[in-house]
Amino acid sequence: MTALTRFIRDVPDFPKPGITFKDITTLIGDPAAFAQSIQELSAPFRTERIDKIVCIESRGFLFGTPIALELNAGIVPLRKPGKLPYETIRHEYELEYGTDALEMHVDAIEKGDRVLIVDDLLATGGTAEAAAALVTKMGGIVESFVFLIELSFLNGRSKLGGHKVHCLIDYDGE
Amino acid sequence: MTALTRFIRDVPDFPKPGITFKDITTLIGDPAAFAQSIQELSAPFRTERIDKIVCIESRGFLFGTPIALELNAGIVPLRKPGKLPYETIRHEYELEYGTDALEMHVDAIEKGDRVLIVDDLLATGGTAEAAAALVTKMGGIVESFVFLIELSFLNGRSKLGGHKVHCLIDYDGE
Repeated sequence: MTALTRFIRDVPDFPKPGITFKDITTLIGDPAAFAQSIQELSAPFRTERIDKIVCIESRGFLFGTPIALELNAGIVPLRKPGKLPYETIRHEYELEYGTDALEMHVDAIEKGDRVLIVDDLLATGGTAEAAAALVTKMGGIVESFVFLIELSFLNGRSKLGGHKVHCLIDYDGE
Repeated sequence: MTALTRFIRDVPDFPKPGITFKDITTLIGDPAAFAQSIQELSAPFRTERIDKIVCIESRGFLFGTPIALELNAGIVPLRKPGKLPYETIRHEYELEYGTDALEMHVDAIEKGDRVLIVDDLLATGGTAEAAAALVTKMGGIVESFVFLIELSFLNGRSKLGGHKVHCLIDYDGE
């Protein structure tokens, strides 16, 4: 377990009773801790060619953006429907109750682009799976998923199609 | 006018007919252009003490995060109601039709903190004004606003209480 763990704040009963939320605002509020997290998240990819960093709205923007600068890669934001201004493709995915969707600009990924998909946290994996579907549909290659935190007891990795997963902080029980 | 202007894409009729949207995804998709924008946005503050970078959800996260790393400052996300997990303060502001609101964690700003407020674009200034109100309420000092783009024909600066404004790209007419 990395020393960064102590910068994560547990918030009980958010977003609903019985859930303990892992709050990353206490980590990004500390300049040294945040800089360290970006270095550690980027480290495995420094010797690889990475073309695009796909960042999932909106906490994924906080981590994906500086990783893109570290790795000299372009940034591709994935957003909820209706937010991106240009022509998009959409992928719908199941939630516990109902469905949700992510959109990506049609020209954001070129065929053969090597891509990292970045978000703050891996829970059940539905959103990350949708991101990979969009990247693959446009001919991109998912080199790895990158998360600050993994809630491994939710087994989100099982949805990630055997792709590599790089994460710094693991919680293996509630 | 900076050379970065050519990386901004005009999208007609978004989010509604008659509006030409300034799309920054084409800039952040280009690693050199994005890196240059972060350098230029950070430049005026390198010799000042900046404690916190207040980033407005969600495109403000894309620019505020790397600026915080450049200036060795903490990141404070401002979000729409209900998104932040810990105890918040809220500021409501007027839209063309109805109202909207921004929230900030109560412990995100300490009294006397010197703050930059970052967003991708200054339009009518309502959101930026709300951000300044939250910072000031917690005892922070707004050192400057920082925007990649200003739509100066909308005169958003008039709402910003005489604070400094640093922006790279100005559009002075529709």
